[in-house]
Amino acid sequence: MVFLGVDPGFQFAGFGVAKQEGSKISLLDCGYLQMAPTKALPERVELFYDHFLALVIKYQINTLILETPFLGKNAQNFLKLGYLRGILYLIASQQKLQILEFSPTQVKLAITGYGGASKEQVARVIKQLFPKLPTPNKADVTDAIAVTLCGIWQARPRFNLR
Amino acid sequence: MVFLGVDPGFQFAGFGVAKQEGSKISLLDCGYLQMAPTKALPERVELFYDHFLALVIKYQINTLILETPFLGKNAQNFLKLGYLRGILYLIASQQKLQILEFSPTQVKLAITGYGGASKEQVARVIKQLFPKLPTPNKADVTDAIAVTLCGIWQARPRFNLR
Repeated sequence: MVFLGVDPGFQFAGFGVAKQEGSKISLLDCGYLQMAPTKALPERVELFYDHFLALVIKYQINTLILETPFLGKNAQNFLKLGYLRGILYLIASQQKLQILEFSPTQVKLAITGYGGASKEQVARVIKQLFPKLPTPNKADVTDAIAVTLCGIWQARPRFNLR
Repeated sequence: MVFLGVDPGFQFAGFGVAKQEGSKISLLDCGYLQMAPTKALPERVELFYDHFLALVIKYQINTLILETPFLGKNAQNFLKLGYLRGILYLIASQQKLQILEFSPTQVKLAITGYGGASKEQVARVIKQLFPKLPTPNKADVTDAIAVTLCGIWQARPRFNLR
């Protein structure tokens, strides 16, 4: 099973790709897609589609993991986040991926044991789990890896005796 | 110039396709895409992509016209509307379409002469302009035609002496 966790954003879109074999989880790839704000919005949407479609094909991903967004102070940013989520849904349907979604609280709880953890706490745990992460570790990347791990742990059968 | 106006929605997505040649505007197609709520959301996103991509190719559309959405009572519906707008942006970028956007007030003003007009008033004007519209005329369809016309009228050079 190969999992892709994404923290979508128009400026930086973080991602983590992880593989589960038995009880072993390996991080195959992580990073972020950076899109210049000077490019028109439709062009950035297409770049986002091309980037993530290529990633799904390259790693033969079968599960997409996302965090449920909540409406913040800026409704137009929330709507634009919807553009990127729509693109990920399209890729998931075209490539027959399963989609798992978790709330930010579920992700923080799964990673740190505390649903109210800060981004820094989440980043610290991720760096402990994967000491070889390339630096600097952007929060967009550690967040995306956290979402990926949360998905893998939740998707794992509850009574895994191996 | 061939224009596509869309009123996106997960249950009914209205559209109008119109061609402008000199001062003549002809409505080439109109209707709506209906997607069963029983289908999973990613599958509906893909159906929406396939439908509108096919329409753009069939009519060799070069301008996409949309209405700017405003946050209503339901933030999750607003986010989902973003999914469909993201798909339209992707198609626009892939197929090199120009995008024009207007507020609901601008559309109503362009069609009825009054920015606070009701959906029924807009529908009445559209039916007067295009008496051969197939019936029943869903508001999703007349809305989409209104958006299309608003775009054509706004895109027209201001001093058209022909």
